[in-house]
Formats: sequence, C-alpha cells, structure tokens
Amino acid sequence: MKTYGVILAGGGGTRFWPLSRQELPKQLLNLTGKDLMVNETIDRLDGNVDKDDIFVVTNTTQVELMLEATAGRVCADHVLAEPAARNTAACIGYAAMEILKKYGDGIMCVLPSDHYIKKTDVYKQVLADAIRIAQKTDALVTIGIQPTFPSTGYGYICHAQEKALDGYYPVKRFVEKPNLQTAKEYLLSGEYLWNSGMFIWKASVIMHYFEELLPDIYECIQKIGQVLGTEKEKDVIADVYPQIPKISIDYGIMERADKVLVLEGDFGWSDVGSWDALEALYDKDEYGNITYGEQVHIDTHDCIIYAKNKLVTTIGLDSVVVVETEDAVLVCDKNRAQEVKKIVEALQDCNKRQYL
Amino acid sequence: MKTYGVILAGGGGTRFWPLSRQELPKQLLNLTGKDLMVNETIDRLDGNVDKDDIFVVTNTTQVELMLEATAGRVCADHVLAEPAARNTAACIGYAAMEILKKYGDGIMCVLPSDHYIKKTDVYKQVLADAIRIAQKTDALVTIGIQPTFPSTGYGYICHAQEKALDGYYPVKRFVEKPNLQTAKEYLLSGEYLWNSGMFIWKASVIMHYFEELLPDIYECIQKIGQVLGTEKEKDVIADVYPQIPKISIDYGIMERADKVLVLEGDFGWSDVGSWDALEALYDKDEYGNITYGEQVHIDTHDCIIYAKNKLVTTIGLDSVVVVETEDAVLVCDKNRAQEVKKIVEALQDCNKRQYL
Repeated sequence: MKTYGVILAGGGGTRFWPLSRQELPKQLLNLTGKDLMVNETIDRLDGNVDKDDIFVVTNTTQVELMLEATAGRVCADHVLAEPAARNTAACIGYAAMEILKKYGDGIMCVLPSDHYIKKTDVYKQVLADAIRIAQKTDALVTIGIQPTFPSTGYGYICHAQEKALDGYYPVKRFVEKPNLQTAKEYLLSGEYLWNSGMFIWKASVIMHYFEELLPDIYECIQKIGQVLGTEKEKDVIADVYPQIPKISIDYGIMERADKVLVLEGDFGWSDVGSWDALEALYDKDEYGNITYGEQVHIDTHDCIIYAKNKLVTTIGLDSVVVVETEDAVLVCDKNRAQEVKKIVEALQDCNKRQYL
Repeated sequence: MKTYGVILAGGGGTRFWPLSRQELPKQLLNLTGKDLMVNETIDRLDGNVDKDDIFVVTNTTQVELMLEATAGRVCADHVLAEPAARNTAACIGYAAMEILKKYGDGIMCVLPSDHYIKKTDVYKQVLADAIRIAQKTDALVTIGIQPTFPSTGYGYICHAQEKALDGYYPVKRFVEKPNLQTAKEYLLSGEYLWNSGMFIWKASVIMHYFEELLPDIYECIQKIGQVLGTEKEKDVIADVYPQIPKISIDYGIMERADKVLVLEGDFGWSDVGSWDALEALYDKDEYGNITYGEQVHIDTHDCIIYAKNKLVTTIGLDSVVVVETEDAVLVCDKNRAQEVKKIVEALQDCNKRQYL
C-alpha cells in the first residue's frame, strides 16, 4: 500500500505578525534560517513518502505563493486549494477523497506545515513506525510529543499505561490546553503527551470515520468525490466546500473514534506558536538573546530580536521581543508574545488593512 | 547700543540617535512638532533682537544644511562656519570678534540652539532684563533656571542670597553636575539655579575677559580679527581655528570672571538632552505615553514612542523608549536614555559609519 503525505498549509498567519501576514502565513516563512517551514515539512518526508506522493492543502488566496514556494518539490496538481477555510476535518476529508478517487487507498500522513522538528532522524523513524502500525491495525495513529515542561499552550493526549509490543499506546482521550496546575499534574503522571496534530491512517479508514461520525461532512465530500477528475470538479468544489461544517479533526473524529493509537515522539518538536517559541529553534548568545539581522545591544538579556531591513539597537532590555519588517515594528514583552494576535485584531478594527 | 543674537549651533547629535546624526544634529530636528529647534531659538529672539542682527555659529560640515534651514530668518553671511569644533569659548570669541570688527560693539545674547522653552513670553521678558543689565553694568550676565527637581544632569550656578533691585543675583560660583544627594541640598538651599548656557554681555566686555583669562585663544581670535572682511579671511580662519585651545566658556571664563550676574528664569526650560526629556515637551496620553507617528499599543505605559515611517506596535511595555527612523530602530529602557551615545560609540567602533 502506498504512503501519501498530506500537508495542511491553509492557516492564516497572525502569531508571527508583523513578519507573517494574511497572504504570507507562517508556513511560508523561513523561521529557521534554512528554508520555508512548509518546505522543511516536505523534505522531512524523504525516506517515508515518495516525492510524487505528497499533497499540500492550502486555500485559494495562498495557492499561487504555495505553488511557487514548493515548485520542484510537489507536483502542481497535488497542491489542493480550498475555496473557503473550513477547519481541519474538511481539508483532511477532501485530501482523503482525492487520494481514494484518483490513486486508490493508501496510508495518509497528515502533517501540519508550520512546526519545527530538531531531530529529523528520530522523527523519520517514529513516522515509519506510525505508517507500519496504521497499515497493520486499521487504527487512527497519532504522534504524541513527550512533554518537556508543563505547557499550557498545547493540547494533551492521555494514553493507557501499557505500551504495546509495537511501541504504541491506546489513546484514552484528547484533552484541551490545561491550566498550569493541571499541566504539572499531566507532566508528573507520565500518561500524557502533547498533541502534535500529526495523524497517520489509511484513507479508507478515515473515510469510514467521516461516514460514521461526521455524516454532514461525509456527504459534502462524496459530492466532491463524484466529480473529481471531471470538468465539473472546480465548480462543484467551489459550490460545496463553503457548506462543509467547520470542525477540527480532533473534535470531530479523534476524540470520538474507537481505535486511536499514539506513538511517543521525542525529536525536539515545537509548534512555533509565537515569537517566544523561537527559543526552541535557536541557540541563545552569551546574554540569552536570540538575534537575526543587523543589531547592536547594550546590556540586553533574554530577548528575541529580529531585524529584517534596518539596524536594530537596544539598551537595558530584558525579555523583550523586537521585530522589524518592511512596514512595521513590534516591541513586545516576551511573556506576552501570544498576544500579538491582539495587535492584528486591533489593526482589523481600525481598518489598517495594509498591515494585515 | 545694538543687540545681537549669537546662536551656538555646532554640536553633533548623538543623544537623539537614531533621529539625530552627525550631519543632522538635534538643533536641526523638529522635536516639538512645530519647527526645527534652531528656528524656534531664532524666532524666540523676536522683540529683543532684530532679524538682521542674528548670527548662527555652526561647523563647516553642517553649514549647508543650516543655511537651508534658516533661510529667510538669518542672513547667509551671518551663518559663521567653524572649520573645526573647538568648544564654546572658541566660537563665542569668533562671533564677538566678527561683531566688533564688522559692526562695532554691541550686546551679544549667546544662546544654545537646541533647548526647549515652554513659556516664550516669560523668556522674552527675562532676556530683555538681561540685555538691559548687561548694558548698564558691563557684567557677564547669565540666565539661571529655577530648578524644579534635583537634577543630576545639569550644572548649577550658586548665587548670593541677596537680590539686586534690578532683579539679578551676583554669582558666587558655577558647579558641575552634582550627585543626587548634593542636588537635593542645592534644591533645598534656594541658592542654586540650573546653568542654562545662555549668556548676555557686551562684545567688548567678553573680549576683555578673553584677553585676561584666555590669552592663547585671544591671540588666535586677534589673528582672525585682523583679516575679517578681507580676501584672506577664509584661509586664515581655516589655518588658525584648529589651533584654538578646546575649552568651554564656562570653564574658561564664567567660573573665573570677577563680575558675573545671574537672572532667574522660570519659563519651562529643558535642554532636551535625551529621548526621555521629551516628557518636558509633550502632554502624556491617558496611559502616560508620549507618541508620535502611526502606532498601536496594548497595555503600554509611560513609554516614549516615535514612529517616523513605519507602524510601531507594542505589547506590555513600561517605561521604554522606541524610536523608528528610515534605517534604524532604537528600543531603550527610558531610565537609560542617556546611554544612547554608547550605541553611537559602538557603531563607530564597528565602523558602521552609514548610521552615524
């Protein structure tokens, strides 16, 4: 059975504003200094998925940029464009139908396009294990990240205590982002992993769960499936897609399915959810700073300073994020980097659309 | 006897970096939002000095910009260019000689070009008093600022307790920038005023003091005086000026002269010595911030934010200075705004001359 990569790359970027923009989301940024995040995601599939079997799901407004960015890596007709953002269940269902209809059943590796993984070799091995288990068990397999601190920013997966010979745990439940106290308890219990959003299953198996658990979405996907590869394809997708109920695959299927397995992953993962998460990607200098671009510092500690075009200078700063781009500057308490989206909301409210 | 304005405008700007530059010093900035500081200084002479009797002393590298900036306010041949920066005694001596030689004796109002004065009417009255007293007494007259807080950033003037009928005090001594404890004692004593650097005297009187107290400088000035108005003028100035000893008028004459009087000034004065001094010029918003340009703030208090070109956004900042200009960004603890010159020094050290 063939293995496919399905990379979810439709998100709009607000958390890395002012670097990320509506039409330049995080997955199209080079945050590591090596390559665009989506391309790093694609390249990490090497060894587990053939280049020709990788799909990228994005939205119509980003599709041009995505084709350009992934040219040479992904076949143009494997870049699927959603005409409307309908959350992850919709785009996974769409990709599953595309695979089933055009290529036949296969293992889908559903992967976020904008996460960071430090130890690629370890990751590849875990993914290989997940593919093998998905093939063998007909289960929904996910990769849970071994927590390294009591994060309140990630969802968790609670698993059974006993590990199978094949290295997986049966999943007991998915839980929402906890408060700090609960997160500490999770960490101590040894039964919780971070939800990485990486899912591995047969296209036929997830389609079965759509039918069982999300019949409304299943019906829409079927309508699309009936015209895939015909001249009606584009029109029907444009018509049907916006009607698909908005629900995440986590809520819609993972939390409710009867056969969900999790494999532990310990490969230096981060969802890079905000500017302060760059600390997972970069080594700090002797003062605890992470810096990019031209800068001069005096007595500056534990800061993240990103200078795209201009010289950035600082005096007497502690734990501050400074980001400079073509048209905007952000200066933010590092402990409040999650609130960058509030700036984006404020810009929307005062109709400064050129900065979105 | 005629009254002349002599505006000292030769300083290089480092304290308002990145807005001020070597060739765009503070006196050529519009920090008040109304006009360039040098032009505000010129305009404040209205009523006490005729427009045609105003001189501006600058240096050769700034003279073009200064002529452009002051066009229509100051006669081009009253913009005196120093071929080398030799501190204030030199340029005051040069201006005094220019006046004596070309126009005859008169009252010189020697004024810094880059200070802020809130209450112009009060200032004009004090200056009128100073001119009258300088004419009547042949003393060196200065204006001392009524201290409003125990500043450690200003020099002080200690005066006799008894005020003359004409409203002046005899000066006992000039003192350097004190530490905080001493500054508090000065404030309590009621005998200390801030040294504003504004001096009013007859050209002939200050020339007499040069001869008596600074004979080396006097000799150089005489050499220049002998050729003023001749075709040799430019060459001799270029030759002699760089040889003039570097000394301030405060050290060289004011602290040592026998007849120095001070008039109290209470007109909302600031030397605007660093970014945090903008608090003397602007009203704060409801969060204690002073802002200029396009910006969006979240939970930001007591900051000074200057956005020249780009959108500047902040989250969770307290007492921070943020300055954005064409090619540089400064983010600085407000209590350390005096250290901006260290950035300029660092840029010199690493030979980033384009930012100086």
